[in-house]
Amino acid sequence: MRVLVIHGPNLNLLGMREPSIYGDQDLDTINGLIEKEAAELGLEVKIVQSNREGEIIDAIHEALNWAQAIIINPAGYTHTSVVIFDALEAVRLPAIEVHLSNIHAREEFRAKSVTARACVGQISGFGARSYLLALRAAKALLERSAT
Amino acid sequence: MRVLVIHGPNLNLLGMREPSIYGDQDLDTINGLIEKEAAELGLEVKIVQSNREGEIIDAIHEALNWAQAIIINPAGYTHTSVVIFDALEAVRLPAIEVHLSNIHAREEFRAKSVTARACVGQISGFGARSYLLALRAAKALLERSAT
Amino acid sequence: MRVLVIHGPNLNLLGMREPSIYGDQDLDTINGLIEKEAAELGLEVKIVQSNREGEIIDAIHEALNWAQAIIINPAGYTHTSVVIFDALEAVRLPAIEVHLSNIHAREEFRAKSVTARACVGQISGFGARSYLLALRAAKALLERSAT
Amino acid sequence: MRVLVIHGPNLNLLGMREPSIYGDQDLDTINGLIEKEAAELGLEVKIVQSNREGEIIDAIHEALNWAQAIIINPAGYTHTSVVIFDALEAVRLPAIEVHLSNIHAREEFRAKSVTARACVGQISGFGARSYLLALRAAKALLERSAT
Amino acid sequence: MRVLVIHGPNLNLLGMREPSIYGDQDLDTINGLIEKEAAELGLEVKIVQSNREGEIIDAIHEALNWAQAIIINPAGYTHTSVVIFDALEAVRLPAIEVHLSNIHAREEFRAKSVTARACVGQISGFGARSYLLALRAAKALLERSAT
Amino acid sequence: MRVLVIHGPNLNLLGMREPSIYGDQDLDTINGLIEKEAAELGLEVKIVQSNREGEIIDAIHEALNWAQAIIINPAGYTHTSVVIFDALEAVRLPAIEVHLSNIHAREEFRAKSVTARACVGQISGFGARSYLLALRAAKALLERSAT
Amino acid sequence: MRVLVIHGPNLNLLGMREPSIYGDQDLDTINGLIEKEAAELGLEVKIVQSNREGEIIDAIHEALNWAQAIIINPAGYTHTSVVIFDALEAVRLPAIEVHLSNIHAREEFRAKSVTARACVGQISGFGARSYLLALRAAKALLERSAT
Amino acid sequence: MRVLVIHGPNLNLLGMREPSIYGDQDLDTINGLIEKEAAELGLEVKIVQSNREGEIIDAIHEALNWAQAIIINPAGYTHTSVVIFDALEAVRLPAIEVHLSNIHAREEFRAKSVTARACVGQISGFGARSYLLALRAAKALLERSAT
Amino acid sequence: MRVLVIHGPNLNLLGMREPSIYGDQDLDTINGLIEKEAAELGLEVKIVQSNREGEIIDAIHEALNWAQAIIINPAGYTHTSVVIFDALEAVRLPAIEVHLSNIHAREEFRAKSVTARACVGQISGFGARSYLLALRAAKALLERSAT
Amino acid sequence: MRVLVIHGPNLNLLGMREPSIYGDQDLDTINGLIEKEAAELGLEVKIVQSNREGEIIDAIHEALNWAQAIIINPAGYTHTSVVIFDALEAVRLPAIEVHLSNIHAREEFRAKSVTARACVGQISGFGARSYLLALRAAKALLERSAT
Amino acid sequence: MRVLVIHGPNLNLLGMREPSIYGDQDLDTINGLIEKEAAELGLEVKIVQSNREGEIIDAIHEALNWAQAIIINPAGYTHTSVVIFDALEAVRLPAIEVHLSNIHAREEFRAKSVTARACVGQISGFGARSYLLALRAAKALLERSAT
Amino acid sequence: MRVLVIHGPNLNLLGMREPSIYGDQDLDTINGLIEKEAAELGLEVKIVQSNREGEIIDAIHEALNWAQAIIINPAGYTHTSVVIFDALEAVRLPAIEVHLSNIHAREEFRAKSVTARACVGQISGFGARSYLLALRAAKALLERSAT
Repeated sequence: MRVLVIHGPNLNLLGMREPSIYGDQDLDTINGLIEKEAAELGLEVKIVQSNREGEIIDAIHEALNWAQAIIINPAGYTHTSVVIFDALEAVRLPAIEVHLSNIHAREEFRAKSVTARACVGQISGFGARSYLLALRAAKALLERSAT
Repeated sequence: MRVLVIHGPNLNLLGMREPSIYGDQDLDTINGLIEKEAAELGLEVKIVQSNREGEIIDAIHEALNWAQAIIINPAGYTHTSVVIFDALEAVRLPAIEVHLSNIHAREEFRAKSVTARACVGQISGFGARSYLLALRAAKALLERSAT
Repeated sequence: MRVLVIHGPNLNLLGMREPSIYGDQDLDTINGLIEKEAAELGLEVKIVQSNREGEIIDAIHEALNWAQAIIINPAGYTHTSVVIFDALEAVRLPAIEVHLSNIHAREEFRAKSVTARACVGQISGFGARSYLLALRAAKALLERSAT
Repeated sequence: MRVLVIHGPNLNLLGMREPSIYGDQDLDTINGLIEKEAAELGLEVKIVQSNREGEIIDAIHEALNWAQAIIINPAGYTHTSVVIFDALEAVRLPAIEVHLSNIHAREEFRAKSVTARACVGQISGFGARSYLLALRAAKALLERSAT
Repeated sequence: MRVLVIHGPNLNLLGMREPSIYGDQDLDTINGLIEKEAAELGLEVKIVQSNREGEIIDAIHEALNWAQAIIINPAGYTHTSVVIFDALEAVRLPAIEVHLSNIHAREEFRAKSVTARACVGQISGFGARSYLLALRAAKALLERSAT
Repeated sequence: MRVLVIHGPNLNLLGMREPSIYGDQDLDTINGLIEKEAAELGLEVKIVQSNREGEIIDAIHEALNWAQAIIINPAGYTHTSVVIFDALEAVRLPAIEVHLSNIHAREEFRAKSVTARACVGQISGFGARSYLLALRAAKALLERSAT
Repeated sequence: MRVLVIHGPNLNLLGMREPSIYGDQDLDTINGLIEKEAAELGLEVKIVQSNREGEIIDAIHEALNWAQAIIINPAGYTHTSVVIFDALEAVRLPAIEVHLSNIHAREEFRAKSVTARACVGQISGFGARSYLLALRAAKALLERSAT
Repeated sequence: MRVLVIHGPNLNLLGMREPSIYGDQDLDTINGLIEKEAAELGLEVKIVQSNREGEIIDAIHEALNWAQAIIINPAGYTHTSVVIFDALEAVRLPAIEVHLSNIHAREEFRAKSVTARACVGQISGFGARSYLLALRAAKALLERSAT
Repeated sequence: MRVLVIHGPNLNLLGMREPSIYGDQDLDTINGLIEKEAAELGLEVKIVQSNREGEIIDAIHEALNWAQAIIINPAGYTHTSVVIFDALEAVRLPAIEVHLSNIHAREEFRAKSVTARACVGQISGFGARSYLLALRAAKALLERSAT
Repeated sequence: MRVLVIHGPNLNLLGMREPSIYGDQDLDTINGLIEKEAAELGLEVKIVQSNREGEIIDAIHEALNWAQAIIINPAGYTHTSVVIFDALEAVRLPAIEVHLSNIHAREEFRAKSVTARACVGQISGFGARSYLLALRAAKALLERSAT
Repeated sequence: MRVLVIHGPNLNLLGMREPSIYGDQDLDTINGLIEKEAAELGLEVKIVQSNREGEIIDAIHEALNWAQAIIINPAGYTHTSVVIFDALEAVRLPAIEVHLSNIHAREEFRAKSVTARACVGQISGFGARSYLLALRAAKALLERSAT
Repeated sequence: MRVLVIHGPNLNLLGMREPSIYGDQDLDTINGLIEKEAAELGLEVKIVQSNREGEIIDAIHEALNWAQAIIINPAGYTHTSVVIFDALEAVRLPAIEVHLSNIHAREEFRAKSVTARACVGQISGFGARSYLLALRAAKALLERSAT
């Protein structure tokens, strides 16, 4: 069971960026937590981060060759990116959208997710733990479809 | 660590209601899963279901006397209920909003959550598992605030 | 052939309430007309009135145990109630929405019906007669599905 | 008691046109049902069908010379035609708007009726039976105004 | 100097139609006033009335062969008719839009004129006199362009 | 002179709920102030609080049997409740809408009041004193209509 | 028969200001034309121009002491000024709104007139002649009300 | 304790202006009531009326030199005036917005108050008494801040 | 393989009407080009032009008896005509929408096509050549469905 | 005559991606058809595909050095990309927008094209054939401008 | 080279008004800075401040007699004043709009400038320095047009 | 004092692209002016141009290692890019938004800046000089924060 984790733009600055909203853990720490949780759940993970919409699309496309599920935090692209939405629709892998902060409790434009329409579900507001819960959800999805 | 789980209107018909959207498990089955997961996580849970907005408000208020966190699926009230939003704001307990289906992938009016603004986070789209993930998230929140 | 008739909020004040809009018959008189028409059509009817959204949902749910069709005047809930819409969708009984006044010829917000989307059809503007026409429509629906 | 029945544009194709929405009866069959019901109710009916907005206006105007009530299915003009609305307002005959399908359960633009504001009431969603119910409603209106 | 006067839909019912809004003069009376005023101003007029959008377009097109200016009361088409707007743009004759009632003081949708964009100007609210003022304005336009 | 005072949902938590917005007096204290002021003004008051829309409607209906005026703080229902609006319209008693906080200086959705349209006037922003001013306003209304 | 003519802001710059839109006549020339036409029609006129909303309101109020009708070009205030609307409503003199340019054929915000709702009618698009037509309309209004 | 009372535009015509909305008392009568109530409450008042936005701003600024609170009826400026809003924000004196009529029960644009956002609270719908209630509210505000 | 070509309103004035937008070819010239291209492609064509919405609907209906595909330029009806949309849906022949000008590069209201929803595709912006490309597209559609 | 063909994001997955919408041909097949058609038409083509907005902009810029026309399918960027619009405006080469599916018959947000405003025309809905028609259109444009 | 500097409403309170937004310098200090910078740049300046829209319009008109450029901070009028926009359009002097605070980073209604459409450019967010930069920009504009 | 200057997409075509809007200087010329002005002001500058949103984000991130302020012209990304907004928020360096043209005087969508919310201020409309003014503003910001 292989899961691709995609961090969208600006997440490389985590820990430093508006810690009252995004927490004070940096991305390496979070990736460490993801890898640890994945190992415990018996999942293989590959993690990518990109500030570029095109690279995110490529990563989604390449997931076809390796992953069985995608966990994606599209960050600022969540609210506008038809092309990421289209990419997720195109590959038809089960995807889970993740947000560190609660997108419903911030600026109004953040409450709307263009990309979540192409996902199985969405988890937002739990900081790094949003990813860990998503791993668990991904595992359940894969187990269910395996039977 | 005590968690109140609130099921909103029409969830008493689960299993029977639009199974392609909400799954074919009935509410008792889901409650059984919630209780089992809670036990494993060392959480005490109380579960209520109500089709009445006023009873849901009362349940939120009464949580002050017993619970340390709330998991709530406001169902159809998610999109319109200022009074449930106000109730959650008033008690200031950490709350987690849960949805069986992915609210971003249905009718447009379902993508907007009035109530999630008063919550720590939201988990939607994983069927009964949304609740189980919420329990796990609740535990982490309570552990963090305990330290 | 059994039909549940549900009168929504404030209809208990009929006769007294804005008679230029709602007519001067009180609810008992209207219920008498409904019962008489039902008897003539060979329909069994049960009539409930409630000012409470939750009770209306319960009545819709309970219809599963007794009725084969629902006639509902959601009154002020017509324009906002996602939960009554969800309840009607959940029970999947044929439902007919009824209004005493013509909802298209009043305040703009009354022209939109949230609940009618979950119904077979809608009859509005004929005063008490809207219910009588709905009974006739219900009978035809039941006869058709019986063959 | 004389009633003019007006069928709007494209209704001449009934039976053939999207039967899942409009039913499989053709317009002649429906007109036969209308004439039969009218006869039973003691109403004289004249039936016209036109694909032209201007002819529909003319028919409404001419109703002044013959009819005491109008039953109209403006079809696609329901949602946009100020001129039919104005025509109905101008003649001030009691009018009943009829739709085969439930206009609240289709594309969003169909839920709004410009023309119903000039009518006594509206009946939608019961297929050919919408007309039959409208005849009955018309008769009651005429009897009431006759006393 | 030849001016075509076009009366739009429902104006044939003038005098009879909502006299509190449109006045109690019938169309023949108004046409008499128009002809008298035109004669005094030394203008030749031709007057047409139609309830059909297509005939109004044809009349505008045919104006090319006879008239030097157009006075038009598009009535209910004022607010929606792109095709009349296009026709006026196409013939490029000076046109004056006229309304009996003050379109800014009625329902909100009447305040917007699609067709006036293709006109030199608009006169609304003076009853039959709106036409007489328009004749005077047309004369001035033609005299100016003649020099 | 008898006045019914209705406190809407969540007001039972006053003192504890967001004191920076709603003040730190609890509901009993406020009710004490209301009763004292009423006594001084020579008004009889009855006070109800409910978290349930249906009970609020019932209270408004029952006011017909006892009260000559209504003071109502619909709280979160202010912005959405057509049914409370309808109830106030139905009983046609003079009603005064009251808010502890200034509804124009908070979230945008709170600036709009559905229910105030059915009231004589509205007083908002003065904390508990909003009720006391409303009592005084109610007295004046009743004295005026008594003469 | 006395008519007050009010020129709104920036009209003192006529002739110099965007001549392709407003024409090349200056305000004195236009006032001369107005006075000449008024004399021919047997009307007494007083003409004021102001760049200040407050002075325009005062002029409308003072019209009560002298004028029987008002001709007003509110210029840029046409589209926003509730206070001029209120002033016209308050004095209840017949008022005619005038515009040099065709307000329907410019920026979209100019098509909406807040002030015209309080007027008998509106004449726009004929340059200085808009005023002359308005004088004629005013005379007719006064003659009619005199009989 | 000194309170400045500001009457906005057109209020000088009170008594004469739409008495069904604004009552039949003229401004002098209302000012007399205000002065009498102020005297009874032990408040010093200064009253100004202006039809000019700029004078209202100046009055608000000058309040800094004399008043401890402001009562303002911005009339038609309520719904549009950013500059009065800014003036009230700038002086940071407690202000109370007052309306004679119920702004929620009139044209839709009147329900929105731009200026109330800069006030402590708002009282609307009680005719002249709105001012008297505001005096009482002002006194309470000043007493509270004095302790 | 038979194709019906429908030219909508005002297209009879081509060549004369705003040549900078629509080109300087008249309709006969364009029809000649269409017939020539059709002949080369082995298609039979019938061409109709009408300024009347009703005639266009009739033409679409009659296409059932003769044509296998429709090419339609609804002109000004493109943006508003539900009835033409309904007619195209009803006959279920493959239809291609054509525009001489680029509808996305003109007034904003022209960018939206109501009628294209009922078509296979749309070609806009190439002048007369839009029709020639549509013929080619129609041929391909018919060949594909023939196999 | 040289034409640059640009395929936007996700088109590299054609054949595999939602074949009911986009057809079952893969991009190589389509490119083969494009090259074959170009050869027949005597056009030189260069084809690029990119999932990156920036690369698409670069390709448009570089077209200045080689191509005389551009055929572009901006895919998901059609509806949002101001920067591609700006790039097309900047190079001022004739451009043709192409879509495989009919953008007017899908989600509402797809009906609006930001980029088509900077193009000569648009062809949508004919699958791979949309490109072939665009080649033909491009050839005609280049031939016309060559004379 | 002569430049008129116009300070709009409430700027006379600078230093005292919301210093966290507008800074703590008073208007005299800022005017001193402006005069000093102007002197260094070799510009003659005249500075006016007014709380009255009409005086601002007059000042813009009078600039025709003295100034070659205008620097204007319309303050609260920025977002609503069509009449100041019209005044700037009318005089056709190069104008520069200035704001102390960043209008894009405050309430949403402040992001829109009605008046900037009539200016060469806009400088916002640099406190008093916004004016100094505008002087420099004005100088460059005048030098350029002088050559 | 080190300042990073970022030119967004399509600015590499300056001089060639719509010179009536953007001027006829090419980017090298502008960069030369920037470097000259920076040298005179004692600022170190680094200049980057990119057509890629991701590279712009990277440049903003890297500014953390070198620059003390950012001057950015996001070009077409100004109006839509949440990710650039997020990047600017994340690095929390003082940023100044610059535009060659006046964004308030072009298409309506250009008046809104998503990115300016994360900046200290904005300068638009002065061509290349917008950058030079921004350098001066940056210097002042850095000097102020240095004290």
